[in-house]
Amino acid sequence: MFDIPPPKASRRSDVDPFRAMDVMAAANRMIAEGRDVISLAVGQPSAPVPSVVAEAVGAFLARGRVGYTDALGRASLRRRIARHYADAYGVDVPAERVMVTTGSSAGFNLAFLTAFDVGDRVAISTPGYPAYRNILKALGIEPIEIPVGPDDDYILTAEALERAHREKPLTGVLIASPANPTGTVTPADELRRLVEFADAAGIVFVSDEIYHGLAFGRDTASALQFSDRAIIVNSFSKYYCMTGWRIGWLVLPPHLVRPAERVGQSLYISAPELSQVGAEAVFDATDELETVKLGYERSRALLMEALPTLGFGDIAPIDGAFYAYATIPEGFGDATELANHLLQSAHVAATPGLDFDLERGHRTMRMSYAGDPEEIAEAVRRLRNVPGLSA
Amino acid sequence: MFDIPPPKASRRSDVDPFRAMDVMAAANRMIAEGRDVISLAVGQPSAPVPSVVAEAVGAFLARGRVGYTDALGRASLRRRIARHYADAYGVDVPAERVMVTTGSSAGFNLAFLTAFDVGDRVAISTPGYPAYRNILKALGIEPIEIPVGPDDDYILTAEALERAHREKPLTGVLIASPANPTGTVTPADELRRLVEFADAAGIVFVSDEIYHGLAFGRDTASALQFSDRAIIVNSFSKYYCMTGWRIGWLVLPPHLVRPAERVGQSLYISAPELSQVGAEAVFDATDELETVKLGYERSRALLMEALPTLGFGDIAPIDGAFYAYATIPEGFGDATELANHLLQSAHVAATPGLDFDLERGHRTMRMSYAGDPEEIAEAVRRLRNVPGLSA
Repeated sequence: MFDIPPPKASRRSDVDPFRAMDVMAAANRMIAEGRDVISLAVGQPSAPVPSVVAEAVGAFLARGRVGYTDALGRASLRRRIARHYADAYGVDVPAERVMVTTGSSAGFNLAFLTAFDVGDRVAISTPGYPAYRNILKALGIEPIEIPVGPDDDYILTAEALERAHREKPLTGVLIASPANPTGTVTPADELRRLVEFADAAGIVFVSDEIYHGLAFGRDTASALQFSDRAIIVNSFSKYYCMTGWRIGWLVLPPHLVRPAERVGQSLYISAPELSQVGAEAVFDATDELETVKLGYERSRALLMEALPTLGFGDIAPIDGAFYAYATIPEGFGDATELANHLLQSAHVAATPGLDFDLERGHRTMRMSYAGDPEEIAEAVRRLRNVPGLSA
Repeated sequence: MFDIPPPKASRRSDVDPFRAMDVMAAANRMIAEGRDVISLAVGQPSAPVPSVVAEAVGAFLARGRVGYTDALGRASLRRRIARHYADAYGVDVPAERVMVTTGSSAGFNLAFLTAFDVGDRVAISTPGYPAYRNILKALGIEPIEIPVGPDDDYILTAEALERAHREKPLTGVLIASPANPTGTVTPADELRRLVEFADAAGIVFVSDEIYHGLAFGRDTASALQFSDRAIIVNSFSKYYCMTGWRIGWLVLPPHLVRPAERVGQSLYISAPELSQVGAEAVFDATDELETVKLGYERSRALLMEALPTLGFGDIAPIDGAFYAYATIPEGFGDATELANHLLQSAHVAATPGLDFDLERGHRTMRMSYAGDPEEIAEAVRRLRNVPGLSA
């Protein structure tokens, strides 16, 4: 009766792995074995939970009930996020357009499901965050990868977007600024041109703003300053140091709120309530968060100085986020091999570039400096001792 | 420049709302206005956070870091869940086949994405949990609804499944026992027949076991007792009283683990870490949880006695879960109207049947008795005072 083979995995689950997470899992196994691994693999602040967050969550827990919230999120958190747009960007956003999500991961999934159908075409720049491509593919949407590189400072321009759209019409475009893995910031004028072109051409503009708050000597504009048609994806994971809480938000054009709510009701029910409580409190943790950011600035300066002397090249402008993205030194054939080698020999975990660029990523690597500044410094010391890695 | 209309919502976001959540949102608005609403709308325990959970989470928070976990979940939680299968069912499940998910919502989404492609056909029974239909549709999978009702005790049989498969081949089937909204338990023998037919026919069997632990005088078998090809979806929301934590799990056939991990890395990164810590602790809260269950039994007895006298008919066998599902009394035209009427006039929120059955649900209603037993009793008193609702 059972000679029928077991059901196969779906074709659409044949997406690329998120190699950063595979590296993290390997690093976690080594740490569990007692080895002293420093991870530059994942974009995750090592700073502790801001104290106001721990206090708010502790008080809420003591009241004893943790339940579903409305699918759009707790009303008070939605209002607080709306106020943030007035404070940080001088933009008036009604709380009704804010949807609280289970991290930006849920934000992307909900934005894509709400705005795009099977067969639609959405432009993204490469190198870029692998989950864009993987979620789009899993949902039957075609990612149109537009390469950026050292020649254009790793920035997707309105002209490049227009060219791609002329070649074959796009349904949407997704821009991240500051970007992952490059850290580059799209200047406000360029962002305005991108948004205005998309609006005029009827292309849905999705703006990944999850690294806002983390730019060094650069301004970061929100797409909302230029249009209320854009979909904004944001998160409490990066500047706000709340990765493991899985909490983020969307700002949606008015006519997409109810569709996103309907899909969210079935796909997520609601974001975790404790995380929503913590997120509301974290807006009052600015002093702590700015101190954490000073640590990133020290680590960033250290890496900017060290990477060229270690033989890394084509270093993307490290305007923001907490990543350095570079071509690996000559003498090492492949970035995935180098990442394995660094993990085994120096106990330093970094992410091979294939995560971000399937064409050119075998020669690039991303290092996150979101960790403890002392650990980043120690990682650099270890890298200096790896044969072949110094100039 | 902007006479181009704003981009439209996707066709696939045109899923039905989850009316229970709309009712909950309406009830929450009334509560915020100071009105004394009792909600029977959502399947959510009102019991407080089990004390061991609060303690474990408080201690973890005090250590100060909440981060991403491996996409498959914390190793210790995966081991603890695996042990649960030995303890509760006498089934040996390796921890490697357990994936921790952001509630069963993420579990369904990951199971469907991993096992099914666009255009595949998956059988579900009607009335049933609306998210099945909505998630399947959003992912481009065709839900094949097989009606069940008073004549078959609301149970989908192996014969009915076989008939549907002969009519047009199925790719998968999803069975919930105890079921939502009916509370019915599929007897172990019938479950075995269903699983064995699916295995022999090459149909992927998805077993929703989230109401396990909540059956009254009935045994609940796991599909794992009959096959290691089934995909098991489970959750800490129901028996374990952890709804708002958004935490659940999958047990996957070995060859689906890596595909689910890959998709999960991009779509979720990981489940919330605090919730994973709490979930591991809740396995030690059995005394508290059994006390909560005694409360459900009291409420269940009360509703089973009251509903017929209030004019409700065709009451589904309330074997398990914490729902009563019934035809509304003669004299009320439509269940959605009746739900609005009860909310406004008696401040009792219940879920209209259209959530669960688009064909027959305009005449049915679901009442959850997961809330505080005193509140359920008060809700019944209020219903007795609604004109037209007594025999």
